[in-house]
Amino acid sequence: MAFKEELAGYAAMVDKALDEYLPSASNYPSLIHEAMRYSVFAGGKRLRPALVLASARAVGGGYQFVLPAACAIELLHTYSLVHDDLPAMDNDDLRRGRPTSHKIYGEAMAVLVGDALLTLAFEILAGLSRSGSVDTGRILRVIHEVAVAAGTMGLIGGQVVDILSSDKLIDRQVLDYIHSRKTGALYKASVRAGAMLSGATPEQLDKLTLYAENLGLAFQIVDDILDIEGDEQKLGKPVGSDTKNQKATYPALYGLAAAKDMARQAAEHATGALASFGAEAGFLRGLVGFVLNREN
Amino acid sequence: MAFKEELAGYAAMVDKALDEYLPSASNYPSLIHEAMRYSVFAGGKRLRPALVLASARAVGGGYQFVLPAACAIELLHTYSLVHDDLPAMDNDDLRRGRPTSHKIYGEAMAVLVGDALLTLAFEILAGLSRSGSVDTGRILRVIHEVAVAAGTMGLIGGQVVDILSSDKLIDRQVLDYIHSRKTGALYKASVRAGAMLSGATPEQLDKLTLYAENLGLAFQIVDDILDIEGDEQKLGKPVGSDTKNQKATYPALYGLAAAKDMARQAAEHATGALASFGAEAGFLRGLVGFVLNREN
Repeated sequence: MAFKEELAGYAAMVDKALDEYLPSASNYPSLIHEAMRYSVFAGGKRLRPALVLASARAVGGGYQFVLPAACAIELLHTYSLVHDDLPAMDNDDLRRGRPTSHKIYGEAMAVLVGDALLTLAFEILAGLSRSGSVDTGRILRVIHEVAVAAGTMGLIGGQVVDILSSDKLIDRQVLDYIHSRKTGALYKASVRAGAMLSGATPEQLDKLTLYAENLGLAFQIVDDILDIEGDEQKLGKPVGSDTKNQKATYPALYGLAAAKDMARQAAEHATGALASFGAEAGFLRGLVGFVLNREN
Repeated sequence: MAFKEELAGYAAMVDKALDEYLPSASNYPSLIHEAMRYSVFAGGKRLRPALVLASARAVGGGYQFVLPAACAIELLHTYSLVHDDLPAMDNDDLRRGRPTSHKIYGEAMAVLVGDALLTLAFEILAGLSRSGSVDTGRILRVIHEVAVAAGTMGLIGGQVVDILSSDKLIDRQVLDYIHSRKTGALYKASVRAGAMLSGATPEQLDKLTLYAENLGLAFQIVDDILDIEGDEQKLGKPVGSDTKNQKATYPALYGLAAAKDMARQAAEHATGALASFGAEAGFLRGLVGFVLNREN
């Protein structure tokens, strides 16, 4: 199957499950459930949940046992976007071409939407045992790892340093820190959750981790490049915001040509980490090219 | 042992464990860890974690196996206070006589502090299996229940309705909804977590749940009364803010005398729910009087 069709298949599977996990707006209090759905169904590419599913497949696991974890990680990603967009944070009015949560529902509700998505993610993870098919000890290890990836040593830590670094000259070390946490941590947690729940060997887990780290890096460098060279129409947001906000980026630190080289190199490392996997890792390989050549 | 000494003992046990669970400010990024500690060590009474420990004891369980859950629930409570105090929410400058998180660290950091405490709570709950002494299936059920209590059908739902109701006339049904979620949900999760982790029978669990529901109600009514009759010095915050903000309260809806009767009645129901427990539920009984007669 062509990569894009496979990604669309994963996204459809995830969307259907998310629709079941998210309380409908007919549940009281209606507004928060409506607002949660607004941000979750906002046209995300579902790359993280696809990574969970594809990693399970790469080690011979079934989708149905890891689908809740895939949804939980997408909710964590969405929560982080909703809170990052807040006026007190990055103050973004648009996300994927649509008004951000606080523009529609107000700041108080946007804070609570993020809180609720974060909380629901752990509710879903704890419910993983319901199928009865996954070892409960394994589930607890995954919950622990996801929480660490989302916490102050991961996602939140990256956002803290990003905020404290705005309007400051930062070096490569700080830039790497921000991106390995803001993007890398959830990418890594995604592949590891999918693989761990499916009984990956320690060796498989190490290789998939290396893959995810490099894929996350490639993704972030391309993100920085798109903010310079991208098409506003395709991106759904204005370009040049990093330059305007004096954000440290890979092109700003290294120049555009060198940044492109770095993205290609990270992509090669990601592909290389999968060398010992067979055809069942086809989607993970295809994702590398997709991330490198994406236009939004 | 006198009740207040026992509560102080529980609080000391919880504070010591929280100090171990919270990353020290020497961990990068320093500011978020400093800010998390600022709000967690702000003179809270530690009633919720004491409920976790005392419920374990009431059903014959040991403290060490439930102490992580006690800490996790206190972190959830602290996160909800930090976010509730935000300018976009209740816009409170003082909490327990000290400036609130956003007054010291700014709004962005206060949002992230709440996020980080919420996330750490689940990291700690997932780590409950480390002692090897608690059944992993039981731990997953507790994580699920705590997540539901903290989510849009619990704590967050209560805050949503509270915010949407400000400056509006509300009826008893809405008032009960707000308080049973904002206060009741975590009280209930506390006793249930302590009891479930300690292998309570379904009957014990039902009675402790009834106890917690009534204790939470008494606590909330007394809170409303203290906002009218309390001593600002002892409360550490100005009185009269509910009236000023036109918040619906029990005294506002029923009158002060009737509200006091309701608090006493809820307290009696709480005590009554413990009738079949022996001396090992002594602390839970003492807590009822403490909640009813507290001055802050």
